[in-house]
Amino acid sequence: MLLEKLNWRYATKKMDSSKTVAADKVQRIVEAARLAPTSSGLQPFQVIVVTNAEVRAKLRAAAYDQAQLTDGSAVLVFAAWDNYTTERIDHMLALTAAERGGSSDALDAYYDGLKATYVPRDAKTNFEHAARQAYIGFGMSIAQAAFEGVDATPMEGFEPAKFDEILGLGALGLRSVCILPLGYRDESGDWLVGLKKVRRSTEDFVTELA
Amino acid sequence: MLLEKLNWRYATKKMDSSKTVAADKVQRIVEAARLAPTSSGLQPFQVIVVTNAEVRAKLRAAAYDQAQLTDGSAVLVFAAWDNYTTERIDHMLALTAAERGGSSDALDAYYDGLKATYVPRDAKTNFEHAARQAYIGFGMSIAQAAFEGVDATPMEGFEPAKFDEILGLGALGLRSVCILPLGYRDESGDWLVGLKKVRRSTEDFVTELA
Repeated sequence: MLLEKLNWRYATKKMDSSKTVAADKVQRIVEAARLAPTSSGLQPFQVIVVTNAEVRAKLRAAAYDQAQLTDGSAVLVFAAWDNYTTERIDHMLALTAAERGGSSDALDAYYDGLKATYVPRDAKTNFEHAARQAYIGFGMSIAQAAFEGVDATPMEGFEPAKFDEILGLGALGLRSVCILPLGYRDESGDWLVGLKKVRRSTEDFVTELA
Repeated sequence: MLLEKLNWRYATKKMDSSKTVAADKVQRIVEAARLAPTSSGLQPFQVIVVTNAEVRAKLRAAAYDQAQLTDGSAVLVFAAWDNYTTERIDHMLALTAAERGGSSDALDAYYDGLKATYVPRDAKTNFEHAARQAYIGFGMSIAQAAFEGVDATPMEGFEPAKFDEILGLGALGLRSVCILPLGYRDESGDWLVGLKKVRRSTEDFVTELA
């Protein structure tokens, strides 16, 4: 179950560079992000799967030289839409109509409402909103990695502008927000692997209004 | 497995008001959020579990009268820290020291670094960062609800300021960012239950750099 898997996983500090995560496992880890719920179903982010070693070396240099980017075998980059646009929302409208038996006035009205909300809003607010949705998918990929027995290191410690440049994200209207190197732990070199997971107690973290 | 559960779940539009989600299920759904990874392990959010019917009626009025808040049997409110403070970071330092065998210079130095990063930064930037972490936990609770066979409706469609007032969150330095009503679907009254899940295709959603 999920709780066991969440207890198993940890932010792997040292990965075994001799091991490769199988492509089907990477695919399912990404699939979890694809299936994640997002606000109004707009999926305002993209997942970039980087297995290319040269590109990962460049990303590592833009991530404070953290070794997981090259010791692992793949890096997932979660990149949020830099803004909501009419085109992007219409794309989801067309897809929804195609998947659910055609367009209708009700469907059009719903998407008109979304466009009226998002399109006039400033890009920064829209980007922050999109970034939050990306974090739901990020969490789902973290969880799926654990189900696959794959180690992963959720990271914000990188330079987004450099990542965007290396990956050509700006031209796609995307901004990297968080990354997930995937690999297999090297227990002998990982200072964190033997340490207890620390979380605030339920009493501290949860407030009940019964 | 997780992918099956993500395919099973949907944003339930109509819940059966005659059914109650058992307390142990609610507890495990919250536990998934507690176990979720967060930036530097700071867990900068709180989960408020509202089962009280009168409070849920007030929340419903501040959530555009969406019926799931009262037709379900519990509402989880994810509330992010309004800011990172020395006290909050020191609290996690003390907890980490207590759980991992005492304080050390290395531990102190790590947390000094966090305080140097977060405390001088403006509250809005810190809140947005905390909100993103809350969304990881939100995703984990959504996934765990599916594992429990519990229906849930991830929602941003509510008035955060009113929620904060109803729940007294301002005094706690918290701001509500997303909510998750829990219950059991009423298939006869739910327009969404029979419709196909719509997601962008893998080709559209994922970019591979191999």
